Amino acid sequence: MNGLPAKTTAEALPDPVTTLMALAGNDMARVETLLTERMGSPVALIPELANWLVNAGGKRIRPLITVSAARMLGYEGDGHLALAGAVEFIHTATLLHDDVVDDSALRRGKESANQVWGNPHSVLVGDFLFAQAFTLMVDARSLDALHVLSRAAAIIAEGEVRQLSMVRDIATSREAYMEVIDAKTAALFAAAARVSPILAGRPKAEEDALNTYGRELGLAFQLVDDALDYGGLAAILGKNTGDDFREGKITLPVAIALERASDEERAFWQRTFVDGDQNEADLDEAIAILKHHGALDETLEAARGHAQNARSALSVFPENDWSQALSALAGFVVDRAY
Amino acid sequence: MNGLPAKTTAEALPDPVTTLMALAGNDMARVETLLTERMGSPVALIPELANWLVNAGGKRIRPLITVSAARMLGYEGDGHLALAGAVEFIHTATLLHDDVVDDSALRRGKESANQVWGNPHSVLVGDFLFAQAFTLMVDARSLDALHVLSRAAAIIAEGEVRQLSMVRDIATSREAYMEVIDAKTAALFAAAARVSPILAGRPKAEEDALNTYGRELGLAFQLVDDALDYGGLAAILGKNTGDDFREGKITLPVAIALERASDEERAFWQRTFVDGDQNEADLDEAIAILKHHGALDETLEAARGHAQNARSALSVFPENDWSQALSALAGFVVDRAY
Repeated sequence: MNGLPAKTTAEALPDPVTTLMALAGNDMARVETLLTERMGSPVALIPELANWLVNAGGKRIRPLITVSAARMLGYEGDGHLALAGAVEFIHTATLLHDDVVDDSALRRGKESANQVWGNPHSVLVGDFLFAQAFTLMVDARSLDALHVLSRAAAIIAEGEVRQLSMVRDIATSREAYMEVIDAKTAALFAAAARVSPILAGRPKAEEDALNTYGRELGLAFQLVDDALDYGGLAAILGKNTGDDFREGKITLPVAIALERASDEERAFWQRTFVDGDQNEADLDEAIAILKHHGALDETLEAARGHAQNARSALSVFPENDWSQALSALAGFVVDRAY
Repeated sequence: MNGLPAKTTAEALPDPVTTLMALAGNDMARVETLLTERMGSPVALIPELANWLVNAGGKRIRPLITVSAARMLGYEGDGHLALAGAVEFIHTATLLHDDVVDDSALRRGKESANQVWGNPHSVLVGDFLFAQAFTLMVDARSLDALHVLSRAAAIIAEGEVRQLSMVRDIATSREAYMEVIDAKTAALFAAAARVSPILAGRPKAEEDALNTYGRELGLAFQLVDDALDYGGLAAILGKNTGDDFREGKITLPVAIALERASDEERAFWQRTFVDGDQNEADLDEAIAILKHHGALDETLEAARGHAQNARSALSVFPENDWSQALSALAGFVVDRAY
């Protein structure tokens, strides 16, 4: 444990997402309207699939960051709404293509889109949403914001390709894994936060600070997801538990456990990950090994560190309701693991 | 036959693509440099796959249109090079995703990328190139051009989804088919031509004229491809022959033949397209039926009409080397069928 004030912040603001959603409610409702409009198409299957996915329980954390950062900076235009919508569409398109890439059967405990509509439609509707993300960005009329988001989209694809090469590779180091999630997850969080100071015409130092906030929050978010995939510290097996294990994805908990593996444990990871030979008891066994080495605890400790870095990055801004809510959001991202 | 001067133009300029490439050679070499730079990535597989596809024998017709239109208008900046590169990347990304969607084994007579690298890498590298297309567009600093290209990308995806719903559907009308190729093929040709007058700050009438040029050229291009897939008028079976037939894609020649089908022929299309029950002699039989109904001739006549529309659209521009070359290009697109 590193003694960071994650819990304290969460206690002071017991439900930070609700607080932030109340603050940002009007803006977020307008973002939803934009999303619905821009997923429209005379080709009925497109809004049908897109609507199903966009409303499949996503928490809208990324567009919430864009909107809140813009408001924290006193931005009073409309461009942040279009950028927030673009961020969510890039995220949604990525989810659609990820499920094709991973051949996933489930997404957030529901059947994945590629299971319901098939890979061809998932690829094409992903492309449609990706294109519409850029039409939304054009509406914000900021070429610099557009550059940041298009680079983030390229970096996400790079991160996904790298992750693909690490599937079932038990030689993956934790450093290599951190580089992957920096690209595949943190880059979009960073861009989501960074476009707001760009749009608001704020100094480079504020752009850098919000880029750091988003990036560190994204790393924390991904590490918590990784821990939750093995039930988190409480080892409560949720609806998504075990996806990474079944797909042979090396995440931080496993990379840590591999560093400390006995010969017997190494044989277990070899069989279940490299050979892909898994039976029903193996997920429990994997969780037991991770807990034995403190790998979930250490992963969440790393997440707390990144969340603290995110909060620290906000210190250059004067305190207001929005900066407090963004700070609380960083706590929430970690607290959902407990 | 409609007596259009396609052959005459081709005789006056016996090799219009060579002529145009000589005119545009310097610009096109710079476009190639941009493509090579922007497909670069520390993730080695990305440039490897992208390079393989970008250099797999594509004719660069789309970026050639962007470059030539800009030069015809006297544009003297560099932005058209970035837009031309963006157009080629959108095209390449679309090819990669198409092969995944169609589960194609071959592309231009070579193994398709999804056969060599697998669907996951084809999806992700397509996403990377699509994202890099937008970073190129940002370099041209024209939000209006960016809007046109992002809308084109969305329309392509819509067209592809519509085409997917028509696979093996022998009730597809020729009107429905023309709408599909207007979206999946002509929209990018139209955008490729239209962005140049936008970039050059030319009047709306010139933007409209070049949009029409590109769109009509794109329709002609696609219809010729459709005829060539059945060997063209000479019925010379080339390296790509029969792809549409094997994949059960209803194209214009088949839609025409279906309008005129005897009961026996309808049973043939039912078996080979709807039931997907094909044997080795069926492609020859299909070609015989198409020729019996003049369906290839009629498809190419339609292509010639669209090529003529493309040439006519150029009449608002003063004649110069570039406008002549663009006009000749429209002839070439059709002449390659003979």
